[in-house]
Amino acid sequence: MPREVRIRVICTSLCHSDVTFWKMQVPPAICPRILGHEAVGVVESVGEDVCEVTKGDVVVPIFLPDCGECVDCKSSKSNLCSKFPFEVSPWMPRDGTSRFTDLKGEIIHHFLFVSSFSEYTVVDIANLTKIDSTIPPDRACLLSCGVSTGVGAAWRSAGVEPGSTVAIFGLGSIGLAVAEGARLCGAARIIGVDVNPEKYEIGKKFGLTEFVHAGESENKSVSQVITEMTGGGADYCFECVGMASLVQEAYASCRKGWGKTIVLGVEKPGSKLSLSCNEVLHSGKSLVGSLFGGLKPKSHVPILLKRYMDKELNLDEFVTHEVGFQDINKAFNLLTEGQCLRCVIWMDK
Amino acid sequence: MPREVRIRVICTSLCHSDVTFWKMQVPPAICPRILGHEAVGVVESVGEDVCEVTKGDVVVPIFLPDCGECVDCKSSKSNLCSKFPFEVSPWMPRDGTSRFTDLKGEIIHHFLFVSSFSEYTVVDIANLTKIDSTIPPDRACLLSCGVSTGVGAAWRSAGVEPGSTVAIFGLGSIGLAVAEGARLCGAARIIGVDVNPEKYEIGKKFGLTEFVHAGESENKSVSQVITEMTGGGADYCFECVGMASLVQEAYASCRKGWGKTIVLGVEKPGSKLSLSCNEVLHSGKSLVGSLFGGLKPKSHVPILLKRYMDKELNLDEFVTHEVGFQDINKAFNLLTEGQCLRCVIWMDK
Ligand SMILES: [Zn+2]
Ligand SMILES: [Zn+2]
Ligand SMILES: [Zn+2]
Ligand SMILES: [Zn+2]
Repeated sequence: MPREVRIRVICTSLCHSDVTFWKMQVPPAICPRILGHEAVGVVESVGEDVCEVTKGDVVVPIFLPDCGECVDCKSSKSNLCSKFPFEVSPWMPRDGTSRFTDLKGEIIHHFLFVSSFSEYTVVDIANLTKIDSTIPPDRACLLSCGVSTGVGAAWRSAGVEPGSTVAIFGLGSIGLAVAEGARLCGAARIIGVDVNPEKYEIGKKFGLTEFVHAGESENKSVSQVITEMTGGGADYCFECVGMASLVQEAYASCRKGWGKTIVLGVEKPGSKLSLSCNEVLHSGKSLVGSLFGGLKPKSHVPILLKRYMDKELNLDEFVTHEVGFQDINKAFNLLTEGQCLRCVIWMDK
Repeated sequence: MPREVRIRVICTSLCHSDVTFWKMQVPPAICPRILGHEAVGVVESVGEDVCEVTKGDVVVPIFLPDCGECVDCKSSKSNLCSKFPFEVSPWMPRDGTSRFTDLKGEIIHHFLFVSSFSEYTVVDIANLTKIDSTIPPDRACLLSCGVSTGVGAAWRSAGVEPGSTVAIFGLGSIGLAVAEGARLCGAARIIGVDVNPEKYEIGKKFGLTEFVHAGESENKSVSQVITEMTGGGADYCFECVGMASLVQEAYASCRKGWGKTIVLGVEKPGSKLSLSCNEVLHSGKSLVGSLFGGLKPKSHVPILLKRYMDKELNLDEFVTHEVGFQDINKAFNLLTEGQCLRCVIWMDK
C-alpha cells in the first residue's frame, strides 16, 4: 500500500507495554493481535510514494508517528504528530485496516503501529526511522520506546542542564534511562527513588549518585527527604511509575522558583492529578507531560544512536538478556519477574 | 532600623487585594492594619546598612522581596526570594515587628510589607526598587503589583514569542495587563475571555484582537471555541481569575505539543486543581504558576518603566481615575463597582 514499508524484523525487545496488553482482558486490548514495538528491521519492499527508505535499509519502527508534513512535525517544539495522533490502535495509521491475516484469512490486529513479534511486519513510513546499518541491532532496538522515553525526557522535555540536580521516581527501565539521560546532560546529582533498595546498585551504572528508599521512613515523606537533601528541592523531578500520588510527591520535591516536574509514567485511564492552586501559583514550579521523552523520532533517535556509537550513551547495560524467537515466553517471564531490564529477542536464532 | 527605609508616599493605587483584605473578616485578615501596596514614594531617611538608596530617591515598594543575596535572588530563573518568602504578613519581613502605632501606642499592622495608605511608611530595602525620578509617579505606582503581574506573566513566565497566539481568561486589570504584555512581546492573536462582553472594547486598547463571551454558548465550552478558532489551541493561556475550574479550561484551551498554561489568579485557600494524568502525559502541555509575573522586582521593573518612557508599554490607559487621599473611599467604591481599572490616590491633594 502507498507509504507503507514491509520489513523483516532482525530483533525486537520486550517492553512493559507489551506485557500489559498481553495480560489485559478489556478494551483497548483486542485479540488476535501481534504485539511487540521495540525493534530493528531491514526493508524488504516499499509501497508507492515511499522515498525515505529503500530495500535493504535498516530501520527502527517507532510507535509515535512523525509524518513530517503537519504543523507539529514541522515544529521543533512538538513531537505529537497531528496527522496521526498517538493511539493504541489495532490498525494501520493511514487507512485503519490490518495487514495481517491468519491461515484462514481472519484479521489479526496491529499493536502501536509496529507489531514486531513477527518475522515480517508492515509499518507506515511515518513510524519508521532509518538508521546507520553498522549499529548493532540489539542496541538500536532499545531506542524504539523505553530507553528513548527516559533519555529524551531528561534531554528534551526537561532540558537538564550541566550541574543540575535530578530526582527520579521509579527505577524501572524508563527511570534508569532518565538517569542515563541526566548523566549525559551533565547533571551533578542524580537521586533515585524506589521501594526496592537493590535498584541503587543497578542505577549506579546509569549515573545514579544517591538513593532514597521510598516507604522506609515513617516520619518523613519522600519529598521532605529530597527537599532536605537538596536544600530546597531538585531542579528536575521525573515521575516514571504512573501514579497520580507520586506525581504530587514529585511536584512537592522540586524546587520552588524554577523546579520542573516531568510526567512520564503511563497512568491507568481516568486517574486524576490533584494539585493545590495556591501551591501552583506561589511556587513558580512547572509541570509537563512527556510522550516518547519529547523526542521527534526521525530527528532525535539518530542523534542518540550516534552518541551510543561515540561511546557517550550507555545502551549496553540495559540489555540484561538475549534469547531466540522460540524463547519469547522466557522473555515475558524474565520481564515480569523483575530481574530483567531489556531482553532482546533475535528472530533468526 | 537596619536595612529599612522611611518613605513619604507620593501616590498609591488601589488593587483588588486591598479590597479583599479590607472586606475579609477572618485570618489572614488582621485589624488594625494599614492597607495599600501599589505606590511611589520618596526616601525620607534610611537605616543602617542601606546603600542602595539615599534621601530624595524615588522608589517603588513591591510586595515581593528581592534580597539580592539568596540563591533565588541571585538566579535569573527565580523571582521567589528564599530569605524572605512571600507571605501576607502583618509585620516587617526582617524582624517580624511593626513600625506603626496609633496615638495610644497600640500596634497597627503592616500589609504586604508596604502599607502605602499612609503619608509615611517604612519598607525593607528588599521590598524597594529605585526608579528614575522623571517618571510620572501616577504611572510608576502601577508597577508595584497588578500591571507588573500581568505584563510579567506574558514576558517572563510565559515567554510569549512574536507571532504567537494567546488566550486570556478574565479581563480585569491583570488580564488586560497580560494582553498588554503579549502585545509588547509581539503576539499575533490575543484572545480575551470574559463573562462581560463590554470588556472587549476596553481590551482593544491593550492589544486584544478577539473576544470569547464566556457562558454565551450553550453547546460549546470555551475551550472548544478557542480550539476551533485557533486550529488546535492557543500557544499560551493565562488564568487571571483564580478559579480552579477555569485553570482546567485554560489548560484544555492550550495547544498540545507545546501549549503553556500560566496560573496568575489568586485562588481561595484550599482549592484543588484537578487534571487528568493521561491528558498531562499525552498532551505535552505545561502548567506553570506565576507570582508577580515571574518578574524580579529590582531588575525587571526598571526595564518596564523604561519601555513606558519609550512609549512602548501602555500604562496610561490603566489609570481610569485619580483622586486625593481624602477621597480614598471613593476609590474603593469605584474599584468594587467595576468601572475602574486603576484609581490613583494622590497623598498631597
Ligand atoms: Zn505529523
Ligand atoms: Zn514500550
Ligand atoms: Zn532573596
Ligand atoms: Zn496587588
